[in-house]
Amino acid sequence: MEFSSKLLENAVYEMSQLPGIGKRTALRLVLHLLKQPDQRTHLLSQALLDLKGKVNFCESCHNISDNPVCGLCANPKRDAGLICVVEDIRDVMAIEGTSQYNGLYHVLGGKISPMEGIGPQDLRIGSLVEKVRQGKAREIIFALSPTMEGDTTNFYIYRQLEGLEVVVSTIARGISVGDELEYADEVTLGRSILNRLPFESSIRSS
Amino acid sequence: MEFSSKLLENAVYEMSQLPGIGKRTALRLVLHLLKQPDQRTHLLSQALLDLKGKVNFCESCHNISDNPVCGLCANPKRDAGLICVVEDIRDVMAIEGTSQYNGLYHVLGGKISPMEGIGPQDLRIGSLVEKVRQGKAREIIFALSPTMEGDTTNFYIYRQLEGLEVVVSTIARGISVGDELEYADEVTLGRSILNRLPFESSIRSS
Repeated sequence: MEFSSKLLENAVYEMSQLPGIGKRTALRLVLHLLKQPDQRTHLLSQALLDLKGKVNFCESCHNISDNPVCGLCANPKRDAGLICVVEDIRDVMAIEGTSQYNGLYHVLGGKISPMEGIGPQDLRIGSLVEKVRQGKAREIIFALSPTMEGDTTNFYIYRQLEGLEVVVSTIARGISVGDELEYADEVTLGRSILNRLPFESSIRSS
Repeated sequence: MEFSSKLLENAVYEMSQLPGIGKRTALRLVLHLLKQPDQRTHLLSQALLDLKGKVNFCESCHNISDNPVCGLCANPKRDAGLICVVEDIRDVMAIEGTSQYNGLYHVLGGKISPMEGIGPQDLRIGSLVEKVRQGKAREIIFALSPTMEGDTTNFYIYRQLEGLEVVVSTIARGISVGDELEYADEVTLGRSILNRLPFESSIRSS
């Protein structure tokens, strides 16, 4: 792509550095901003700079928060003995969206992934183990994505917690609600048979 | 979606104002920026502000340009008597990419579209007619998208040019190179038969 303007080329280049945004999409977005009032661009730039400059992470669960301790950790109505281990803030939002969980979270900030050069030392695992050691947690729930990396991370943390007095559980894997059985993959279907539940519990939760 | 941080919510909101970027994608992009070094966000914001604040349009063809007259219009090797009428800079880039055109361009900045409230007065049609009136153009080539809006715009400009001494042509419509004939739509196939070319010309251009 050859540009008639360095300014345009530069803006398109920077926009195309975002994940999933190619050169063509970047050009479309930049031309859209050009057609909009100046204010649009100023608001976007300022919002990004503000977030990057002033962002704060909860000192307890490491979630993004405007205060030193986030609203979830500071809420006395939540069960502080229950800690759900997640990868990032999107998972917190997804679980909060279910309105089924009343404990706290621990945001790792990623998963162990040798392919991407992310080791245990890059994640916030130490503070989780410390919380358990201090007897603050009754149960740890692993809620990482069921991928190779997620399972590796679960297992690593599990080994770190060995010998400490805490119940370690993982979210249930099984057939999604509304899924057709014949289209489910074999591993998931197999696990859902092995980990079958008393019928009464399925009545209660639905 | 409920956010644990106003700063984050604000950044996601502004990002999601871009066309084709929903709330989820916006969150993914913003979280990506958060993980990157500060510089990435600064470069992106600065590039957008620079473009918006300093952008300049060529006074002859209205294309985006860093100089008062763009590189294409200022190039003495290009045929100044040939003017290709396009919608925006992306079309200029697409035609330049073919290396088949040696004339100049005229960027309208849009198409006549009553549905979107865009009338002839919102486009740069007057300066095109003026150029022709001054005898600067030998031929005008319409290269707008073959949609209802494009055809309307072509026709409007054509009427404005009536009585002036200029050849008006339009880019050829026909079967795309590499397309299977059986999958072509009827209108395109019909036109390509009506507007058939001497076989010799197809050998020359390939």
